[in-house]
Amino acid sequence: MNAEIIAVGSELLLGQIVNTNARFLSQQLADLGINVFYHTVVGDNPQRLKAAIEMAEGRSDFLIFTGGLGPTKDDLTKETIAAHVKKQLVMDEQALEQITLYFERSNRTMTENNKKQAIILEDSHVLPNEHGMAPGMLLNIEKHMYMLLPGPPKEMEPMFLKYGYPLLRSKLNEDETIVSRVLRFFGIGEALLETEIEDLIDSQTNPTIAPLASDGEVTLRLTAKHKQRDTALRLLDETERVILSRVGEYFYGYDDTTLMHEAMKIIKEKGLTISCAESLTGGMFQQTFTAIPGAGAYLKGGVVCYTNEAKAKVLHVREETINEQGAVSAQCASELAENVSSLMNSDIGISFTGVAGPDELEGHPVGTVFISIFIKGQHVQTQKLHLGGTREAIRIRTVKYGCYFLINCLKKIKNVH
Amino acid sequence: MNAEIIAVGSELLLGQIVNTNARFLSQQLADLGINVFYHTVVGDNPQRLKAAIEMAEGRSDFLIFTGGLGPTKDDLTKETIAAHVKKQLVMDEQALEQITLYFERSNRTMTENNKKQAIILEDSHVLPNEHGMAPGMLLNIEKHMYMLLPGPPKEMEPMFLKYGYPLLRSKLNEDETIVSRVLRFFGIGEALLETEIEDLIDSQTNPTIAPLASDGEVTLRLTAKHKQRDTALRLLDETERVILSRVGEYFYGYDDTTLMHEAMKIIKEKGLTISCAESLTGGMFQQTFTAIPGAGAYLKGGVVCYTNEAKAKVLHVREETINEQGAVSAQCASELAENVSSLMNSDIGISFTGVAGPDELEGHPVGTVFISIFIKGQHVQTQKLHLGGTREAIRIRTVKYGCYFLINCLKKIKNVH
Repeated sequence: MNAEIIAVGSELLLGQIVNTNARFLSQQLADLGINVFYHTVVGDNPQRLKAAIEMAEGRSDFLIFTGGLGPTKDDLTKETIAAHVKKQLVMDEQALEQITLYFERSNRTMTENNKKQAIILEDSHVLPNEHGMAPGMLLNIEKHMYMLLPGPPKEMEPMFLKYGYPLLRSKLNEDETIVSRVLRFFGIGEALLETEIEDLIDSQTNPTIAPLASDGEVTLRLTAKHKQRDTALRLLDETERVILSRVGEYFYGYDDTTLMHEAMKIIKEKGLTISCAESLTGGMFQQTFTAIPGAGAYLKGGVVCYTNEAKAKVLHVREETINEQGAVSAQCASELAENVSSLMNSDIGISFTGVAGPDELEGHPVGTVFISIFIKGQHVQTQKLHLGGTREAIRIRTVKYGCYFLINCLKKIKNVH
Repeated sequence: MNAEIIAVGSELLLGQIVNTNARFLSQQLADLGINVFYHTVVGDNPQRLKAAIEMAEGRSDFLIFTGGLGPTKDDLTKETIAAHVKKQLVMDEQALEQITLYFERSNRTMTENNKKQAIILEDSHVLPNEHGMAPGMLLNIEKHMYMLLPGPPKEMEPMFLKYGYPLLRSKLNEDETIVSRVLRFFGIGEALLETEIEDLIDSQTNPTIAPLASDGEVTLRLTAKHKQRDTALRLLDETERVILSRVGEYFYGYDDTTLMHEAMKIIKEKGLTISCAESLTGGMFQQTFTAIPGAGAYLKGGVVCYTNEAKAKVLHVREETINEQGAVSAQCASELAENVSSLMNSDIGISFTGVAGPDELEGHPVGTVFISIFIKGQHVQTQKLHLGGTREAIRIRTVKYGCYFLINCLKKIKNVH
């Protein structure tokens, strides 16, 4: 079965909102093993919506609509589909009851046009809306399946998860399971990674291997199909083993993890605490770290030493260092790492200094970065990098390299507890 | 002229990423007065891409493609369009030079398949990529226009703004000018703002007034059309004046500015410097501040005092304060603001302490936040807030309120120079 996701709403075509529904539903359908070949967005215009439906029927078995189920005049999804598939629109008493309750609960007055939302396509299977008014619908006509879902993600997502997903699962023939796994890499470009495993990507069909690059990271999505789930998983394991035997040194985690999550995980495992001195990153490392709940158990704190004055006054970088080697230097980075860990009384000190741009600094080109790591009295690593991209891209990659180096350093040391 | 935005990439159909490009381009095209009737997403599949192109040619004058310009085997946009419109693919020496430089700068090894990115459609107008490798293209064939843009937003957005937008502007017939202006508000909800100016929104057609809410901010986009540009601008001015006469107290800036940009602007005007003590925000204020080039002239630096130990040891918050009133208190906030400004030797000290969640702290519910501002020896403001939303939403809004309070405090004081 292959599907097409059709979002209805002029606000999408005006760029007022992003079509996150298409992403959510695509993930869900991938889990169900349903291929999504197209996303379409069309405005609140019955002619163009009708044309989009006919188009989709010609190329897809399963049409999923989001939006256009609201109470206002420009909400026309139900009406247009009803006319197209020649079905009546009928009042659904249960839905009407829910809407009435919804208004009682929220102490608002129900208007006539709200009742419109309780009208459904006859013969359709109703998906209750527990977070809003418009119910969803699933309709089968000959070889096509039509699912209508509300536009607001707050209503659509829980509705799909609780009612849509199980319903589809039961309709699919169950004799094939699809399992998927994402391998995450850092420190290697997409082109180079792909060159390393080109033969696998070209030759393999089960699992399939799909590369994707973003923000200096590369991911490989492995997707396997088999009658037995165990066998499908075994196929993933085997392919993963082959891939990691070639590019394992750049691998850092699975699925939706991040370098920062992995860094925090290993800091926790080793029973350590960390503090941070940030010059060019201006607080980004600590902000990213503290975005993770529970960060306070591991991050003591840190200093944003954006000026040389702050480096000298607060983190006691030696005057000679600043004058002779400069703030953008390995020596400055290692003093920052050591001194922040003693100031904050943490096991680990990590520091970032360099040139984010737009202008060069101390004669160093934009993208020159020093990262230093100090662990329990030892200078473990001080690394110079040359990064490309915008000011923000350089800062983001600097933080990612910091996590990456930290993970690799900590892997080498023994647990404390 | 009406347009269709065609995103190419299986990662979109798998739900790995959201199609933010369609939203960005839709906003830009709306500014240009180009109607967008469809968004389409198609996978890295030449047959289905060809079908999508034919479809789009049948219903749209202007086809904008994003994605599929990368170095890997599954990047097929150029090749598929070239075959369809019967154009050769030729090496663009300038683009090749840029790519080579990009690799030299970032110290990475350039592979053969990277060269593929410098190949362009013959007779196309090249749009340079200043933040990545693949150049963009604009091609005219009879009554259709084809624009090819890279997929990564960090490359596509600056490319379109700098090269795509002006190019399109020059191609559009100029006998009606469209001017647009965004008014930005903070500290007032969308519903309330809309109520205040409902009569204007309903009655006005030129300029049109379009409200949009996001991240605790509300914007109004005014769009006016007229043969004379001056007249169109005058229409905007008149409407703006009426709007600000009603809700001016919440207005903070125009178009793409941010609260942080406005805060930095007024700090600069007043000839001051600032430093920051961050507990729950964990560095977010300073990271956002230093995202703006030239931040170093105004931000001395600051301390991420995520633990009470750091608050006491580094910022000398009094023991009684922590023990009797707690870290989440007005007293702690004002000591942090004063002490960070003396530690960093800055004119302004601003501090953030509170509960980002997920758990409550010191008996305070999630969303309890204290912000304190200390300017030149004076405690100017200490404000308690009760914010809703996720951990991240609370942190983001805390930083925005900090900027908002700072702007309003600084407006009241005289310039120093």
